[in-house]
Amino acid sequence: MNDLKNALIKAQEDVRANCPMAPSITNFVTIDFVANAQIAVGGSAAMVYMPDEGGAMAEISKCLYINVGTLIPVHAETVPNAAKAAHEKCAYVLDPVAAGMGELRTKLLTDMKDYPPAIVRANASEVITLAKMWGLIDTDEGKVRGVDSTESVESAREAAETLARFIKGAVCVSGKDDLITDGERTILSFGGSEYFARITGSGCSLGGVCAVYHSVTDPFTAAVAATNAYNVAGAMAEKKAEGTASFKVAFLDALSNMTGDDLAACPMKEI
Amino acid sequence: MNDLKNALIKAQEDVRANCPMAPSITNFVTIDFVANAQIAVGGSAAMVYMPDEGGAMAEISKCLYINVGTLIPVHAETVPNAAKAAHEKCAYVLDPVAAGMGELRTKLLTDMKDYPPAIVRANASEVITLAKMWGLIDTDEGKVRGVDSTESVESAREAAETLARFIKGAVCVSGKDDLITDGERTILSFGGSEYFARITGSGCSLGGVCAVYHSVTDPFTAAVAATNAYNVAGAMAEKKAEGTASFKVAFLDALSNMTGDDLAACPMKEI
Amino acid sequence: MNDLKNALIKAQEDVRANCPMAPSITNFVTIDFVANAQIAVGGSAAMVYMPDEGGAMAEISKCLYINVGTLIPVHAETVPNAAKAAHEKCAYVLDPVAAGMGELRTKLLTDMKDYPPAIVRANASEVITLAKMWGLIDTDEGKVRGVDSTESVESAREAAETLARFIKGAVCVSGKDDLITDGERTILSFGGSEYFARITGSGCSLGGVCAVYHSVTDPFTAAVAATNAYNVAGAMAEKKAEGTASFKVAFLDALSNMTGDDLAACPMKEI
Repeated sequence: MNDLKNALIKAQEDVRANCPMAPSITNFVTIDFVANAQIAVGGSAAMVYMPDEGGAMAEISKCLYINVGTLIPVHAETVPNAAKAAHEKCAYVLDPVAAGMGELRTKLLTDMKDYPPAIVRANASEVITLAKMWGLIDTDEGKVRGVDSTESVESAREAAETLARFIKGAVCVSGKDDLITDGERTILSFGGSEYFARITGSGCSLGGVCAVYHSVTDPFTAAVAATNAYNVAGAMAEKKAEGTASFKVAFLDALSNMTGDDLAACPMKEI
Repeated sequence: MNDLKNALIKAQEDVRANCPMAPSITNFVTIDFVANAQIAVGGSAAMVYMPDEGGAMAEISKCLYINVGTLIPVHAETVPNAAKAAHEKCAYVLDPVAAGMGELRTKLLTDMKDYPPAIVRANASEVITLAKMWGLIDTDEGKVRGVDSTESVESAREAAETLARFIKGAVCVSGKDDLITDGERTILSFGGSEYFARITGSGCSLGGVCAVYHSVTDPFTAAVAATNAYNVAGAMAEKKAEGTASFKVAFLDALSNMTGDDLAACPMKEI
Repeated sequence: MNDLKNALIKAQEDVRANCPMAPSITNFVTIDFVANAQIAVGGSAAMVYMPDEGGAMAEISKCLYINVGTLIPVHAETVPNAAKAAHEKCAYVLDPVAAGMGELRTKLLTDMKDYPPAIVRANASEVITLAKMWGLIDTDEGKVRGVDSTESVESAREAAETLARFIKGAVCVSGKDDLITDGERTILSFGGSEYFARITGSGCSLGGVCAVYHSVTDPFTAAVAATNAYNVAGAMAEKKAEGTASFKVAFLDALSNMTGDDLAACPMKEI
């Protein structure tokens, strides 16, 4: 744990020092929140949609962010282009939003097995669905039926650990508590706020922030850093909030003032 | 009126208890505001663009929200698919943003006459334009020339009542005061704030919130509930606002704390 | 300078009196910020994407805003249509976001030389890149290598002045200080906040606000008015900010309370 805490402190320092750009292909609902969260922690944002731009971004950055919410037809070409380029030349964080819904989304996510991300950030249901899509967990056990984001993240532990080993990276399962694993180590991160479920985009923007941290450190440390940042800032913001919108303002404010020591002080437990 | 007030109280309680998802096809400008307003009153949001996804959403929800602002080519297929599916399997709320402007928008709105919404939420000009498009009011009287959202909502009363009877639902005309009618009963709801005209998306998000309430109650009660929520929250927010952006934050905060008693206490008058 | 200050005061008064609509074709990230900033200073916003809508907007407004961030395929037709129509029938403000990146963006910006904007609003790097694209400055001097938005705006002075003379309008180079020129007069505007670089959309929305002011005054006065509004509101907001998100709220609040006297009182210097 001490090594991890030191790595978190260094990650935050390196992000503030280098302002890494983590380009995104992300949904229209929370695109502004993703960009502002990435900038708040010290990174830089650039959003693209055209098929040639995802690949171009992979040439000039260390980690992309791909979020498959609100697809439009151009994503059919842009997402595979960007994911392949990022897999080969740098890395990417995947948020498999609404995995299992819609033909295009299903095809895009299924095909990503051949050029997997370094980090998957999702809720319990989406992690299990993705692991099933890729044939990594037994679908006959029926464990996944009815799982949604209100379930405990621990229900997705096996899927997450299996997925993390397959991608040789990290999986971050968001819920009341948050589970992060690289397939060897699995930890829970605590804190946050019930308000996270009452605004749109806390999950999406967390994925974007994972991509900022992964520009300066390994997938597991990056996923823990991003999650801890959200848990610390969420808990601070809840104290100031008078409703959902002032929570979001206070949360982004706290994120913009985040230090490495804050990340290291976030309650965590190895499980 | 007492029956209506009791129905409003029950609607808010049912929304908070069931967290109904009201999926949207909506514009890019205010998509985040729509989602956050829907969640604030107690519902859940999901935004889609692909042609197969609107229909899929109609299978798993009680009411969609379709807003025809900022169209892109994929809407040519997605909007009719979603509207038809929702008309048959559940229901939808329509915001005919900028009705009369642009070829695609005109075609989409004209065609909806064959699979009409349960609720239309619009300003006076848009309500009159839609009623004309569908041949429901006499276009030779020239009443509509120059009508825009700064006119009194009562100028659209006849169009709104005729439209409400045609769709067998409710029409909500937003303005300084707000008119809601099911073609039999017509009421005005009072309150709100002049700040509503100085931020983008108060109308769009009101349509999305109508869809949340219509997931638990009839069109007329749903339209009144949403309008009253906006009038109560707007008046509360104006007291805290130091400008347009703090108004929006305070407004969403107030919406997130809204109770059934608040909805029932909003000043209303049958006309 | 006194003439300019009087023109700034008159511009703000005319905007508040006439509420000019300045329609936009703009990116998905900051579209809400653009609209809310335009409304805050006293204008009106309308965002479009369809090929026939840009031309239609040029018929009913005095100035469009075209921002080439986050392109999707439909922009290939919509941007030239709107730019040509605006060049002929009214005017437009261009934000050449990420000039030089991507095939479609390069083509759109290159072709605009034949139907240029009245105002270009960009950072130093983008201004130099656009002037090079249009063959207006010598590309062999290598001055532009490595220029990005962190460089002083004065490094782009020559490019900006040459560009302004070519378009017979004004160029606004945003940076720590801001340079505005019409090719004859060149001024610096001071103030603002370091927070501008820590939120997304301060540049994009400034372009949209230029279009609002250019609806009531000449390009140079409009560019100065918009820049001064941002510098005054940014400095006021920094005093209230507890982080990036509360800065943005306070900034938009200040913009919504902006007066002509505020614009005239902003520190400026002719260079």
